[in-house]
Amino acid sequence: MKNVKHAKCVQCGKLYEAVPNLTNCTCGGILDIVYDYGYIKTVLSKEKLAARRDYSMWRYRELLPVEDATPAPPLRVGWSPLYTAEALAKELGIAKLYIKDDGINPTASLKDRASAMAVAKAKEAGAEVIACSSTGNAASSLAGNAAAAGLKTYIFVPSRAPKGKVAQLMTFGATVISVQGSYEETFELSRQAIDRWGWYNRNAAINPYLSEGKKTVGLEIMEQLAWQVPDYIAISVGDGCTIAGLWKGLKDLYALGFIDRLPRLISVQAAGCCPINRAIETNQAWMPMEEDTLADSIAVGVPRNASKALMAIRESNGLTVEATDEEIMSAQKLLGRTCGVFGEPAGVTGAAGLKKLCEQGRIPADATVVSVVTGNGLKDVANAINACGEPLSIPSDMELLLKAFAEKGIVVE
Amino acid sequence: MKNVKHAKCVQCGKLYEAVPNLTNCTCGGILDIVYDYGYIKTVLSKEKLAARRDYSMWRYRELLPVEDATPAPPLRVGWSPLYTAEALAKELGIAKLYIKDDGINPTASLKDRASAMAVAKAKEAGAEVIACSSTGNAASSLAGNAAAAGLKTYIFVPSRAPKGKVAQLMTFGATVISVQGSYEETFELSRQAIDRWGWYNRNAAINPYLSEGKKTVGLEIMEQLAWQVPDYIAISVGDGCTIAGLWKGLKDLYALGFIDRLPRLISVQAAGCCPINRAIETNQAWMPMEEDTLADSIAVGVPRNASKALMAIRESNGLTVEATDEEIMSAQKLLGRTCGVFGEPAGVTGAAGLKKLCEQGRIPADATVVSVVTGNGLKDVANAINACGEPLSIPSDMELLLKAFAEKGIVVE
Repeated sequence: MKNVKHAKCVQCGKLYEAVPNLTNCTCGGILDIVYDYGYIKTVLSKEKLAARRDYSMWRYRELLPVEDATPAPPLRVGWSPLYTAEALAKELGIAKLYIKDDGINPTASLKDRASAMAVAKAKEAGAEVIACSSTGNAASSLAGNAAAAGLKTYIFVPSRAPKGKVAQLMTFGATVISVQGSYEETFELSRQAIDRWGWYNRNAAINPYLSEGKKTVGLEIMEQLAWQVPDYIAISVGDGCTIAGLWKGLKDLYALGFIDRLPRLISVQAAGCCPINRAIETNQAWMPMEEDTLADSIAVGVPRNASKALMAIRESNGLTVEATDEEIMSAQKLLGRTCGVFGEPAGVTGAAGLKKLCEQGRIPADATVVSVVTGNGLKDVANAINACGEPLSIPSDMELLLKAFAEKGIVVE
Repeated sequence: MKNVKHAKCVQCGKLYEAVPNLTNCTCGGILDIVYDYGYIKTVLSKEKLAARRDYSMWRYRELLPVEDATPAPPLRVGWSPLYTAEALAKELGIAKLYIKDDGINPTASLKDRASAMAVAKAKEAGAEVIACSSTGNAASSLAGNAAAAGLKTYIFVPSRAPKGKVAQLMTFGATVISVQGSYEETFELSRQAIDRWGWYNRNAAINPYLSEGKKTVGLEIMEQLAWQVPDYIAISVGDGCTIAGLWKGLKDLYALGFIDRLPRLISVQAAGCCPINRAIETNQAWMPMEEDTLADSIAVGVPRNASKALMAIRESNGLTVEATDEEIMSAQKLLGRTCGVFGEPAGVTGAAGLKKLCEQGRIPADATVVSVVTGNGLKDVANAINACGEPLSIPSDMELLLKAFAEKGIVVE
């Protein structure tokens, strides 16, 4: 890979050759892929991008850690829409708001960006099997992207995993091992199996290529905004890989001179599980927390990528804010009603935090903000049902309809 | 609209001016929008399309019945991926197979194409409210697309409507009226309310613009295939609007000389509810049927657009085939395993029928086929759960994992 120099441990600084099956540093630290921006400047420009017809994450190939000959995996991941949210901006009292809807990815979450990268690197490694442990979007995105590429998957889930997510995995032909125990025990069995059989490892925060996939969300936001940098980008944070990936993409563009400043990140966590934000707010090392939130995709009490996430928030002079479950579900309806975007609870947590910051007067009225929706509401219909209340219920009778409207205060214009 | 001549009743041939709020003919027949292809040829060419950067259904504006000044509604509908399905083609024993995944639309079904058109026409009509009766994808797509465009929606559902779909509607801010009665009673109340308040009508097979939105799926397939016409296009059929729309798009392209022949349609219905196919197979008028299938989106015993659908199948020298619920759920897994595409039951019914035709030897081995997946599997997780069986379940112990693999005959390579 001419564009990649090496991988570097974010903890001890040790360098590694960027082979396809990289895992953590011997010190336990997470690796980061280091690029040769000087070289990349010679092969990529804004004009070249503008002329490109590949509307997927692979349009940024010069900024991705893959060999020239590596084919893009089959599913069309990325280039999700960035919607101008005028009505919502007005409600929040800010000048300009954009909603990046990553729920329209093939398996309906931003995680497809990481899984597509995992599939590409597994192919480079000559692997025929990929494995991971996960209960959620990482698992289903891996299963879907691997199936399309003809790779087998072994996926370890704790037995508490929702049946619907297991069904999605099995539909994609994954071998699903439901582990009678905690998530830690599940992870441990997956680790042993991966070691034993040499499967390609798609555990987040172990495989350093995954956040390089995720960074494409940041690359896209900037290109879709015609390289006009917003003041803030709000995103939900669980294990930290996504916000770290987003930041990496923005820094890439800054290093290349494609953008002339960097936005401030808004790290939004659930009030019931916010170890990363708490570390920022107290300016101390992060500490494990209980996982008490219905936003399951970000209910991560022991974040596996805290180091990169904390660096991203600090480097960007970022803001932190916590949203309660009530505020999250309220944001789900707010995005639905004003934007026609239906996000899962964790998916709309970024917007929930943004709303809270606006109410607290922490966002200037003239600000331009992007809020990323990381997953589709159809992933978790049960919580939407609880949040949205009951519809009007009447027999088929016009008089009763008029009466029901009057009782509910519904005035038809 | 310079590109539109008029609307014409498919039953009695009566002509109507193409005003924005067209409904059925006075004779009860459905209207069809008639274009001035001579004019369109002067403003649209394959080359112009190729240069276009709008990757949504609105790239075909010259072929759509909207005024030049009408803005495209906000949500990004259309230009869904067309995947080359090599592994599945091999399994089915055909030369070339493509899967068009329309489940990645904003509200996760092909119906977004019709609802986006409804929103555009409602704006032209100066309406601020759109209404429909539906239990499923039409309702959620209308609610989402209208919310994004700042239009109010009133949606009438029978009380048996699944709670998840109602929750999706309410998340989009629709006023949902749950009618204690049958679908017919629901429809009747919606009709009375629409008449009373003059709401814009998005009931399918009444508003003739809706299938003009749906036809964009056919336009896209052909452009994505570089105008190389496939031998067959397989699609599931419920009330008939979608297959009729698909056919209209193909005929448009043929009339313009963009394609030099027409594919044969494969109309796939559920074995438990197939009035349209039965009419073709018996060469008689269609008769109402019971609605006995788990593919709820195409469980239409009294198809409201049978006339256009029957014409489309007959004109294309089409094939008909019925898939049992078992075959439908088997096709769901087949598409998941071989393509990484997760479709809802009605969404994969086209593929189920195609598989059956291949097994019956009714598709030549050298054929090129497109199969359209009309909706996302996340819309109906319950049926996927029933279909996919149970995962392996063990404690976190390597020895027990080896034993479980051995028992299940899983050989790790």
